[in-house]
Amino acid sequence: MQQLVAFDAGGTSTRAVIMDRTGACLGYGHAGSGNPVSSGIFAVQASLRTALQRAAQQHGQSGSGYSSAIIAMAGSSVQTFGKTFADGLSDLGLQGRVVIESDLLATFFSATYHDQGYALVAGTGAIAARIRAGQLDAVADGMGWLLGDAGSGFWIGHQVVRAVCAALDGRGPKTSLCVPLLAALGIDPDLPPLVQGRAAAAQQLIDAVYELVPVELSQFAPLAFDAVNGSADGVAQDILARAARALSTTLSAVLAPAVIGPLVFGGSILARGSALAAYVEEAAGGSAIRVADGVVGAAVLALRHAGTTIDAEMFARIRRTLADLRSA
Amino acid sequence: MQQLVAFDAGGTSTRAVIMDRTGACLGYGHAGSGNPVSSGIFAVQASLRTALQRAAQQHGQSGSGYSSAIIAMAGSSVQTFGKTFADGLSDLGLQGRVVIESDLLATFFSATYHDQGYALVAGTGAIAARIRAGQLDAVADGMGWLLGDAGSGFWIGHQVVRAVCAALDGRGPKTSLCVPLLAALGIDPDLPPLVQGRAAAAQQLIDAVYELVPVELSQFAPLAFDAVNGSADGVAQDILARAARALSTTLSAVLAPAVIGPLVFGGSILARGSALAAYVEEAAGGSAIRVADGVVGAAVLALRHAGTTIDAEMFARIRRTLADLRSA
Repeated sequence: MQQLVAFDAGGTSTRAVIMDRTGACLGYGHAGSGNPVSSGIFAVQASLRTALQRAAQQHGQSGSGYSSAIIAMAGSSVQTFGKTFADGLSDLGLQGRVVIESDLLATFFSATYHDQGYALVAGTGAIAARIRAGQLDAVADGMGWLLGDAGSGFWIGHQVVRAVCAALDGRGPKTSLCVPLLAALGIDPDLPPLVQGRAAAAQQLIDAVYELVPVELSQFAPLAFDAVNGSADGVAQDILARAARALSTTLSAVLAPAVIGPLVFGGSILARGSALAAYVEEAAGGSAIRVADGVVGAAVLALRHAGTTIDAEMFARIRRTLADLRSA
Repeated sequence: MQQLVAFDAGGTSTRAVIMDRTGACLGYGHAGSGNPVSSGIFAVQASLRTALQRAAQQHGQSGSGYSSAIIAMAGSSVQTFGKTFADGLSDLGLQGRVVIESDLLATFFSATYHDQGYALVAGTGAIAARIRAGQLDAVADGMGWLLGDAGSGFWIGHQVVRAVCAALDGRGPKTSLCVPLLAALGIDPDLPPLVQGRAAAAQQLIDAVYELVPVELSQFAPLAFDAVNGSADGVAQDILARAARALSTTLSAVLAPAVIGPLVFGGSILARGSALAAYVEEAAGGSAIRVADGVVGAAVLALRHAGTTIDAEMFARIRRTLADLRSA
């Protein structure tokens, strides 16, 4: 029986799984970044290659002759890099067509074998999707740091830095976010004051942040969660409350009465137990299924593309055999 | 009697004035961009040179042997480029020290000869200053597009684009801003819909905006003013109301009971007759003096640095003689 390959290519790591047509996973491997926008196309191809080699090693087979392959990656990448990408993978032993799929579908199908429902992912970015007949029927946000990603890790980190800037020059309320942010950037908060009418620490903060690529501001999102948990900081509470409302609005934009199905959460901002995630669930009127990555869903997509109908038994087999491989 | 030179170096143009120690302006000239951050240091030196040559031509003298010179430019440039800048101007015939001054002081002293008060400038960026004893005593905001500039042209333009993005995917209310924004970017709003669950026009908008340098979003600020004036668009009204509150907060952050003096407005966003400017004035409890640029203030600063005390008569002479030169 011919084997299939599924890839889940994400910003920080890439995962590959080899399986048969019954949904039994035979080999699993992971490697570095799989986001062509942040890492470049050749780095991603190298990550796919390494992840597949490791999966083949675990499987104990040569790693060639797979009958079909799907690669799940960020939505915008699908359009921009799809063709070039597939062309660069001719050495991977993938017979037949390589299909690029949205990572939103992979997130959704990591939680369910039903072919309709909703996914909300909030990591560095934020995006919601409605899935119908196994396809993306509508998406909201996912427009990147400059135009959208409201409530995302970038958005929260950006608000943290702006709130500290406003606190430092008296435009905004004092906040306990100042100390950990200045510390994270190695700035002494007690520098001699006032250069051209501005506190020296504020000027150093400005200089340090403009050295970063904007999306790197997502690294400061955890400061907001820490400040809420540690000291009930009002400014941090307000930031997270606005993030929760924004994510809820993004999800609401894709809800449709005709589409009934599970709600799936992905991304670190919607992690289990956070008040933010609880707010979004309550506003949506139901509890969400959380997934840590999209590798199960990538496997589901590979089987669907091979013409297999996934039922509860097969979905359970994918999850069980993959979990065994990942803990091996 | 030896002559002085004053430069007002701004983002879109640079102005030079030659004067004597009584405040009588003798020659005026202007040239291109004077912002070293956006144009580069050599381009700015060339603009200063050209502006001064034109001023010397109008004066009908050779253009050398000035006893002192001041250059007013954006605050952050003063620290970053000050020394290198002055070193590169040795061929301008400037005897003695070249002093770099904040453009905020030049804005303030373009409206008044008093040595204390307040300035609020909202163009592409936004910043407020308290002036005491002729110096910057405190500034608020002016932290740039990523960290601050709340209520500025960039900020308004950014909010316009984000509001249109939210309207296009159903996260935000419909707004009449969509049509002019898509038109400004050459995008057909009726493109065949849905690529990967997203409207084609929305995807084209995303692609077009990420091609821009972020500060270029300030070009869309006028769309908000047009939408308020033309169709009382609620989304645009909300954007301008929030801009007004943000600018008012920025100004409030520098107000001090011990400092009584004129309030000076600069920058296109605070232009005469706008509801936005009226809001900020009302919140500050007084009417502002508006200035179109900082050249009068640069002349005042040059005289102050030469040890001259400016009184009402001398200030009137600077304004009158400079206006004559500029209309010549």
